[in-house]
Amino acid sequence: MPHKLDLGDLDASFSGRLLTDPSDLAPFLTDWRRKWTGRAQAVAQPDTTDDVAAIVRWCAARGVPMVPQGGNTSLSGGSVPDQSGAALVLSLVRLNRIRSVDPQNNTLVAEAGCLLSEVQRCAADAGRLFGLSLAAEGSCTIGGNLATNAGGTATLLYGNAREQCLGIEVVTPAGEVWNGLKALRKNNTGYDLRDIYIGAEGTLGVITAAVLRLHPKPGGRALGFVALESLPQANALLDISRNRVSNRLSAFELVSETCLGSVLRHHPAQRHPLARRYPWYALIEVSDVEGFEQASLALNRLLQDASERDIVCDGVIADSLGQVSALWALRENISEAQGREGPTIKHDIALPISSIPGFVESTMATIAQRWPSIRLFIFGHLGDGNLHYNASPAPGMDHTAFLMLEPELNQFVHDAVYAANGSISAEHGLGVLRREEAARYATPIELELQRAIKRALDPHNIMNPGKVIFPGFAGGSLS
Amino acid sequence: MPHKLDLGDLDASFSGRLLTDPSDLAPFLTDWRRKWTGRAQAVAQPDTTDDVAAIVRWCAARGVPMVPQGGNTSLSGGSVPDQSGAALVLSLVRLNRIRSVDPQNNTLVAEAGCLLSEVQRCAADAGRLFGLSLAAEGSCTIGGNLATNAGGTATLLYGNAREQCLGIEVVTPAGEVWNGLKALRKNNTGYDLRDIYIGAEGTLGVITAAVLRLHPKPGGRALGFVALESLPQANALLDISRNRVSNRLSAFELVSETCLGSVLRHHPAQRHPLARRYPWYALIEVSDVEGFEQASLALNRLLQDASERDIVCDGVIADSLGQVSALWALRENISEAQGREGPTIKHDIALPISSIPGFVESTMATIAQRWPSIRLFIFGHLGDGNLHYNASPAPGMDHTAFLMLEPELNQFVHDAVYAANGSISAEHGLGVLRREEAARYATPIELELQRAIKRALDPHNIMNPGKVIFPGFAGGSLS
Repeated sequence: MPHKLDLGDLDASFSGRLLTDPSDLAPFLTDWRRKWTGRAQAVAQPDTTDDVAAIVRWCAARGVPMVPQGGNTSLSGGSVPDQSGAALVLSLVRLNRIRSVDPQNNTLVAEAGCLLSEVQRCAADAGRLFGLSLAAEGSCTIGGNLATNAGGTATLLYGNAREQCLGIEVVTPAGEVWNGLKALRKNNTGYDLRDIYIGAEGTLGVITAAVLRLHPKPGGRALGFVALESLPQANALLDISRNRVSNRLSAFELVSETCLGSVLRHHPAQRHPLARRYPWYALIEVSDVEGFEQASLALNRLLQDASERDIVCDGVIADSLGQVSALWALRENISEAQGREGPTIKHDIALPISSIPGFVESTMATIAQRWPSIRLFIFGHLGDGNLHYNASPAPGMDHTAFLMLEPELNQFVHDAVYAANGSISAEHGLGVLRREEAARYATPIELELQRAIKRALDPHNIMNPGKVIFPGFAGGSLS
Repeated sequence: MPHKLDLGDLDASFSGRLLTDPSDLAPFLTDWRRKWTGRAQAVAQPDTTDDVAAIVRWCAARGVPMVPQGGNTSLSGGSVPDQSGAALVLSLVRLNRIRSVDPQNNTLVAEAGCLLSEVQRCAADAGRLFGLSLAAEGSCTIGGNLATNAGGTATLLYGNAREQCLGIEVVTPAGEVWNGLKALRKNNTGYDLRDIYIGAEGTLGVITAAVLRLHPKPGGRALGFVALESLPQANALLDISRNRVSNRLSAFELVSETCLGSVLRHHPAQRHPLARRYPWYALIEVSDVEGFEQASLALNRLLQDASERDIVCDGVIADSLGQVSALWALRENISEAQGREGPTIKHDIALPISSIPGFVESTMATIAQRWPSIRLFIFGHLGDGNLHYNASPAPGMDHTAFLMLEPELNQFVHDAVYAANGSISAEHGLGVLRREEAARYATPIELELQRAIKRALDPHNIMNPGKVIFPGFAGGSLS
């Protein structure tokens, strides 16, 4: 147990809330997936950027490690403290103002603790669209989205969180404020400090606010659900889609029959949209600024083209908002349905799109042979090369035995990912879940460059220690 | 004069060419604008990444500063050595292979010395488009484009060089090779090393190759040239354009009557496209994957809408490829025409688009009053907030007297840019031209963060010293 600090002077140093009661702390100490529970000295909830700076200075002076936290929805354990009890959790949920909206510049400035759904709503109120969209949008914060460079279903059109951010405000580990809130699309006046902090998972400083890009609101969206015999067909359909509708293609999601079957099994109210089952399905969404009719026309034409070339076996185009929701629900309920099949081993991988068919075919074959009692749930954002390559126990398999396979299954899948020049963390970050693997797969020069950056910007390793590729604060010093 | 090195062992350490004859060196020592001429020990032209690494190791061991150079088209003096004669110029023009093209993944891998036009051509041969486009494309290299995060006329649709790059290969100042050539759209496995090197102007390492994003080829483009009474009208037209054609808007360029008048004066073969003159003009380009007809229809509709709202006074839509070229030439010949008006003082600024009308009105008024003999040439990429805010002497003004005004005019314009939270270098980088100004305008924390990065990644300040915000190698040590 670390030395207990006198928190009274910390409490006096900022406006906002300081939580110290164990029952108040609890929700901040366990992650979203309930895989990690840590301990902390306290949870500080500052009201302003200056409050954040005051808290950080207080911690820096005492060597107290800090764990920045937004909506605590990390899937990789990135937002909870370790078990040493040394850390202060820096919860940014009260830093939740939209500072300004500039529709003519297509930007808004949001504080880190704004919910993603609130940012979306403010953009919509200004007649614009904020392009980041993901399952946790009602709970996650924009600060967390930027700290982890979140992805989601609209990445194909609008990019990751990184591409949707023009500028940021950061509190450094010394408690200084860097105001990088430039609402500019072109700016070459020195090093790209912004992108060093985006995706750094709070290990270099605390993002307190951001300038976000807005886009015109699509006038309408058309959604198709199609059947595919194989993954090469899925790639061929993606290719046709891009070439026919270009940047009106707003989603291209892949769903395996195993995934769809599980969703239908656990959600009896949902129905299979087609007359029979196929190995793979794709959800294709076309957005058009002019309206639904144009989007629908473009989608129809491209599917007709694909059908004439025997790429698509069967399909349906949503003809009502209700059907749009029903089709999207088939994709969105996969994670939840898979959770009902027992424990889950998840892989959030990215590959060059051209490599995906070969990768999936060869890894599925090996897994079927080596671990016949594992069922694979493969789905995700094929349009940007990001697959959720998940595993569940086959019916009847012992759950503990299944979970014992996790290290070797991870290694098998991730070795194959690296062999294909892919990524073992496409959109979920490293957190603690992938820290050791990421450090193992990184080349020596990659480790050296990252350590050099960390040493330069957080020399005392007090910002979110033990995350990304770095050792925990309690566990040792930064080498 | 620095100590002369024995270049024989350098020559033996790599394949490629080593130029030492003064007449061979000359073209590498003077910049594109002929503002800076430096000296160098030699010019090395490696054939491969390993050659680059060998040269860098040789230099690092001897403390020889290196100036990476691509097409030597920098407008800010970023690619030439200083006058100490200590440096080696590292010319990457022989590192010019397209390593691979993956149309299904919409990527290609190009070496740093590939001409931008060659990358565009290879993409086109694969049925794709590479989205970077700028005046020097036949002379500049992709390595230089990335090192300076180049912009250009297609930024509105495809982004700057940074957004068009998925991964890079870098030789570090210690001569190690970092292979970051991931052809992935999602990858969150540690710090974003890629974006640290992009835009760093060769001061942290040498970019030797890059994975570049490709896009579907537009089926057709429609181009309009319209007259505007004021800049608020230009912004209103931009707003309507975005909302009506969204991401089919591929260019929105602003041209002042002064600029157009100069082009017509110096290019008598070119004709004013409209019956009379107006204060401002805009070139609007709509690209559509389906073809010219769709693009033209969309452009017609949006201009009709703008005309009905009295935003556009007059205009013409190109009805032939010849007319497209003729209209684009009015924009593209501005820099050259301005050059014929005498010496030029250039400002490459970016502002929030909503601030541009107020900024231009107030600065023009002040300049007219304080420096009545200065003529302003204002044009540029209004769609992404980037203006070229240039000055020429009015007819009859003494050229030397005009150039004496440069420091105070720069300060006036750039002070106003900073007051509007803009950038004094939108797409041309800092080089030596803006080094001191950038350092002066940067906040102490911005300087500190950039110096920390520089110290971490180039501790001996041997990579392109004297550029960005850093002191010259000969001029002193890094503070």
